[in-house]
Parts: sequence; structure tokens; C-alpha cells
Amino acid sequence: MKSSSQTAPEYQSVLTLPKGFRAAGVHAGIKADPSKFDMALLVSDPPETAAAGMFTTNKIQAAPVRLGIARLKNGRARAIVVNSGNANACTGPQGERDAVEMARMTADALGIPEEEVLVSSTGTIGKPLNLDPIRRGIPALASALSTTGGDAAASGILTTDTRPKVCTTRISLAGQTVTLSGFCKGAGMIEPNMATMLAYVCTDAAIAPEALRAALRVAVDQSFNRISIDGDTSTNDSVIAFANGAAGNPTLRENDPDFALFQTALNGLLFDLAMKIVWDGEGMSKFIELRAEGAANDAEADKALRAVATSFLVKTGWAGTYPVWGRIVDVLGYCGVDLNPERLAMRYDDLPVMRDGMSAFPDKAALEKIITGKRYTIAMDLGTGGNGTAVLYTCDCTEEYVRINMF
Amino acid sequence: MKSSSQTAPEYQSVLTLPKGFRAAGVHAGIKADPSKFDMALLVSDPPETAAAGMFTTNKIQAAPVRLGIARLKNGRARAIVVNSGNANACTGPQGERDAVEMARMTADALGIPEEEVLVSSTGTIGKPLNLDPIRRGIPALASALSTTGGDAAASGILTTDTRPKVCTTRISLAGQTVTLSGFCKGAGMIEPNMATMLAYVCTDAAIAPEALRAALRVAVDQSFNRISIDGDTSTNDSVIAFANGAAGNPTLRENDPDFALFQTALNGLLFDLAMKIVWDGEGMSKFIELRAEGAANDAEADKALRAVATSFLVKTGWAGTYPVWGRIVDVLGYCGVDLNPERLAMRYDDLPVMRDGMSAFPDKAALEKIITGKRYTIAMDLGTGGNGTAVLYTCDCTEEYVRINMF
Repeated sequence: MKSSSQTAPEYQSVLTLPKGFRAAGVHAGIKADPSKFDMALLVSDPPETAAAGMFTTNKIQAAPVRLGIARLKNGRARAIVVNSGNANACTGPQGERDAVEMARMTADALGIPEEEVLVSSTGTIGKPLNLDPIRRGIPALASALSTTGGDAAASGILTTDTRPKVCTTRISLAGQTVTLSGFCKGAGMIEPNMATMLAYVCTDAAIAPEALRAALRVAVDQSFNRISIDGDTSTNDSVIAFANGAAGNPTLRENDPDFALFQTALNGLLFDLAMKIVWDGEGMSKFIELRAEGAANDAEADKALRAVATSFLVKTGWAGTYPVWGRIVDVLGYCGVDLNPERLAMRYDDLPVMRDGMSAFPDKAALEKIITGKRYTIAMDLGTGGNGTAVLYTCDCTEEYVRINMF
Repeated sequence: MKSSSQTAPEYQSVLTLPKGFRAAGVHAGIKADPSKFDMALLVSDPPETAAAGMFTTNKIQAAPVRLGIARLKNGRARAIVVNSGNANACTGPQGERDAVEMARMTADALGIPEEEVLVSSTGTIGKPLNLDPIRRGIPALASALSTTGGDAAASGILTTDTRPKVCTTRISLAGQTVTLSGFCKGAGMIEPNMATMLAYVCTDAAIAPEALRAALRVAVDQSFNRISIDGDTSTNDSVIAFANGAAGNPTLRENDPDFALFQTALNGLLFDLAMKIVWDGEGMSKFIELRAEGAANDAEADKALRAVATSFLVKTGWAGTYPVWGRIVDVLGYCGVDLNPERLAMRYDDLPVMRDGMSAFPDKAALEKIITGKRYTIAMDLGTGGNGTAVLYTCDCTEEYVRINMF
């Protein structure tokens, strides 16, 4: 790479940890199936590691989320320990103590201050955390830590996911090659409005904590906040980024010219991970890109798309071969946004299905070809004449979704 | 019945038309299956028939809804003609003309003024109405009209319903026996916020149009507005009441002592019909009564319950044997209502499952007995210390719901 600002970053579906990071995943015994990892650890070795996080907007926050918010106030953290299988949410004061204890045990095993350790939990809500398997798991994680342990860590955070979700990209900052990589989980209980799943990003870039926080906020807003599986925002969702400076570039700040390049790379990394979450949506069979225009403003366009993406009737219709534009119109009518019924218009990919509030009488074969595909775009014009637009990535709801969530 | 005000009305699951009403149902050819009725007609013979209606709050209103709103302004109407299989919604100016034409043909067949005829349509949105079968169906309906035709009419309005929903009750007003009866349809696309399905009520009581309208509003608010199947409010929902005075009681007005008795009877009739809709919810396997208390106010309590009743995760969990209280707490946290996480409490029937924001460690066998039942109540306290309460009747979401709505 000659000039960093002239080359678009490339994104690879592998997890190559940046310099100075080690990771591990183990089966500690929280999940019954011994073949499934249920704990993960990610550590940055350089003591001066910047960290930033974004957490669920749910008013009920799990204990590890509250701990993370408190510990990230100073923009510094070096490790995250994760358990899957139990959310440690609605677990009262004992849950708070358990989260602190998980961090303390991890800090002991790593020989670092406990304030630099963060915790995530994911799984069942309201069940007290059993610390016994975690007590065994943490030393096992610490011994297993390695620079190639990213894939094991990416497996250790999964719940109903069918596969790990990972991504790596590289950019050049002031002549130094900088790596950004990340992994995430989430397949149900996914709705934007903040993080909405667990995602961890690590980079060997040197970047000031406040610049990392600002970049993370922008990147999350364009990625994890633009997806919806089932409209349910979890109590535990967290996106956490670590930057340890091991690449040796001069510390990046928001007003540096290279900050835009870092932002672009981070945006792309998180977008790639977010799309992988939609493609692994519980029971999903189709990827749907929703676009709205002609709304009174962007917030109205967003509200309309979120209502469409969480309608039982619409989502189940997508699973079949029913051209659900009538159901989408129904949702637009009740979701509370401004619209002009006589000017509503809609396209499936490039095929108009509705104009002036009525059927556009699309060619049946052309429409069937689109809706039997694995991925398509539905673009709607709310007809207000306003400039509001939005985009949202979502999926259908199949019988398999119901089966997954019945028990 | 000796004193009308001392006897609670009894509700029977039969449709006995009150004096002066005739009805019919036929297969006109809108639905492909010749064994299924797809049109219905209800007529009041006395010329002076009071009528009132409540219609969908959806901003996209089907043509027959707009026609009904206009024609009921004067509180008078004598007939309703219904087709199932096509909603005549999003059908533009031609749809408006088609609704008027349906009413005109019906008026001609009955020999009454066309302004006294209302229209309902239910079925696919956005498909132009084919008037050919309707043109054949209307004379057939008119010839089939009979005082025992209520059941045929109740069948003619169905779509995905598995059975007709009917109810009859009787009260005594000023020494005269008065009959109230009704029938309705609806199994999906059901969410309160007004009518949300098709329902027709007829009575031979003499009642002033404004009193009928007032009574209908109260009764709908306590019945059809308290149920939720999938959160989707249709473009066509209508509840229409006719009162023809054939019972011979003195015309009832809102300030009459007997008005309360009429109101009670109407409330009970609509409540019975509304519960029948929940029990016939698309693919439902369990009836869930939701109760909220300790909310800042009633509107907040209602908002919380509606969010719970439309969560994919909660509804699919009910379908199984998963004690979903953790998922319910998650919804309470993101749905935007005031709550105190440390004071949240919940009961399944009489069994506390949560108190002080944590598990109440319910007996596993006792909980399993409740959640494997066909019907149970979930009562939650939002912990604000406020007096807000609400109740909502809903059902689970099974794989069968998805199958029904895929095509």
C-alpha cells in the first residue's frame, strides 16, 4: 500500500489477531454439550491499551454491562472474558458480585489490575450464574491464550449461532501496517438501537481513547444499528473495541488526516460483521434489504422500516413466495409515520410493484423470480415529498425460527 | 327475568337473529373452493334502523371502510354486504367505485335506498376487486335471506378462521325481551387499537343512534381493543352495530336507567366474540391473559403489555415449554415504559416467578404444570409504585402461524 488514503480496505472472513493480542476459547462446562466452547478470553499485552464500548439501550442491563460501562469511563482496558449459556441478567446483587468476581479471577490469572478486565455474558436471563465452571474455565483460558486463538474465542461466545462470525482488514497509517479484526455473535434477540449482540474489535493501531470511542460510535451506527432479526433488544448487548498501539504509528487523534481512513476501515469491518449476523439470523432463509425514501425525515423513514422488519405477517410472508407488498403497506399505515396513501410506491429490486397507492401490476414471472431468490431489496417511497431516507438489513421468519425459540 | 337490572345476561354461542333481521351467506366464486362461502348479507327490515360503526385506525383505509364512515355519519343504515377473499384495499379510485357499486347492487336487490347499505371486504390487499362473482352473488344472497340465515352469514365472512364466531344474549327492557346477537371474523392481522377485524352486531332494541354509538365505543374498547394476535392492524377492520327497535321497548337514550343494562349486555357480547377470536388465532396453541400493574399510568401499562404480546421471542417461547419470564423482562426493558428494575415482579397464575427484579425461584414442577396448560395468566408489576394497570388477551406463535402466512 503506497498511499493509505487512496486504497479502499479489503475485508477477509478470517480472524487474524493484530500485534500484541492473544485469545482463547474453551469448554468450561456451562453448556451441557462438551464439544461446544462456552468461554472466551481476549487480551492485549501492551499495558497502555485504549478501549471503548457501546452497550444495550435496554433499561434492564445485565450485571456485566453495568460493570463494563463503569470500567470504560477512563477509556482503558486490556482484557475481556466472556461466558455463553447464562446472561447474568436479572440476577440482583449476587449477579453484580459474580461479574466482579469473574473479572477478578481473570485479572489474577493474567497478572494485571482487575479494573482493566471487562466481562460479557450471554444466554438465559434470570438464572443465577454458577461460578464453578467459570472458576475452572478461567485458568484454562489463560493457559490456552495464543496469537492464533482468535477462532477459538470466536466460537466460545456463540449461543444459537450456526457459525462463528469473524473479519480482518488492514490499512497503512504513517507507513505502518495496522490490522483491525473482530468477531461477534448474535442470531436472535437482534434489533438495532445500539449494539444488540456481542462484538469485539481489536486493532494494533495507536489511537487516543476518545478518538477510538468516537470512531466506534459512528461505525456501530452504520452497522449493528442497521440490522434487525426479530426486534428484540437484549439486556446484554455490547460492542467493545481495544487498540493497543503495537503497530507503532503515531497516536491517532480525531483531527488527524488519517483518522478518516481508520474510520472507513472500522466502518467496513463492523458492517461486514453485522451482515454476517443477518445471514446467520435464527431460522432465516432470505436476506432482505429495506430502503425508504420520501419520508418526512430520516427518523420517520427509519421508524417505518423497523416496523416493517418486525411485522410477523411481513416476515413470515417473506419466508414463502407470497408477494407481501400489501402487508408492507398495511404496516406503513399503522406504524405511525407520515405518509401519503395516494402517492405510496414500492419496488422489489428494480421491479415496480406499487405506484400511486395501487398495484403497479408487476409481471408475475419477474416478481416470482425476485422473491424466490436468496436476497433482494424492497424500496418504498412514503410519498410525503420529504427527503427522509433510511436503510435496514433484515431477514425472513421461518418455522425454524419458532422451533429454535420454543424451548 | 323479573327485574332486568338484577339479572346478569347469559351468553350463548349460537347466532339467533333478533326480530326484524334476516341474513344469508353464499359461495359467489371469489374463493376458489366452491364449498366455502365468500359473501354474506345482513338486513334489518324496519326502515328506521339505527346504526353505528367503529373502523380501523390504520392510515391506509380500504374503500369499503371509507364508504362506511361516510354513510354512518347520520346514524342510520339497514344492510351490510360482505365479501371475503379480496380486501379492496390499495385499489385506488376504481376500488372506491367498486365499493359503491356493491352497495348499489345490494340496494337494488333489496329495494332500499343505496345510502342505507354498508360494505365490508376482507382478504388480499392491493388486488383489484373482480365484480363478476359479486354481481352473481348479490341476487343469490337476497333470495337466500332468512331469519335463520345468521350461521350462513357468519361463514361467509371468514378467511383463515377455522370456525365461525357467534354469540347471542337477551335482556329485558321495560318489560320487553330484547335480543342482541353478533358474529365476527379474524384470526391474523389482529391488534387492538380499534376494531381490528370484522364484527357485526344486531339488536331489536329501540335505541337512539347516538346512544348506540356511545355504547359501541365503550364495548369495543373493553373487548376487541384488548386482544392481540400478531400486532398487525388491518386496513379493513370494522365493527358495525344495527338496532331496529322491533322489540318494542321505548327508545333507549344514554341518560335512561336501563342504558347501563344495555351497555353491560353489549360489553359481554363483544367480549365473548373477542375471546373467540383469540382462541381461533392463526396457529395458536395457548391462550395467554396478560396483566400489568404498578405502571406510572394505564397507558404505560397498556404499552408494556402490547410490547410483550408482539415480541417474537416471547410468543414463540409460549408455544414451547420455556418459562419465558426472562424474555418478558427483556421486552419491558426496551419497550420504553417507566419501570424500576429492582422492583420488577411477575406471577404465572398464582405462582411468583420473579420478585425484586430477580428470580423468585419458583417450584419447577408447579411452573411446568402452568406453562404446559392451554390457558394461563401472566401478571407483572412494573415496580414504579404507580397505579397504572392494564389487561390484554393474546396467544402464542407456533410454527403453524408461519405456515399459514407463508403463502
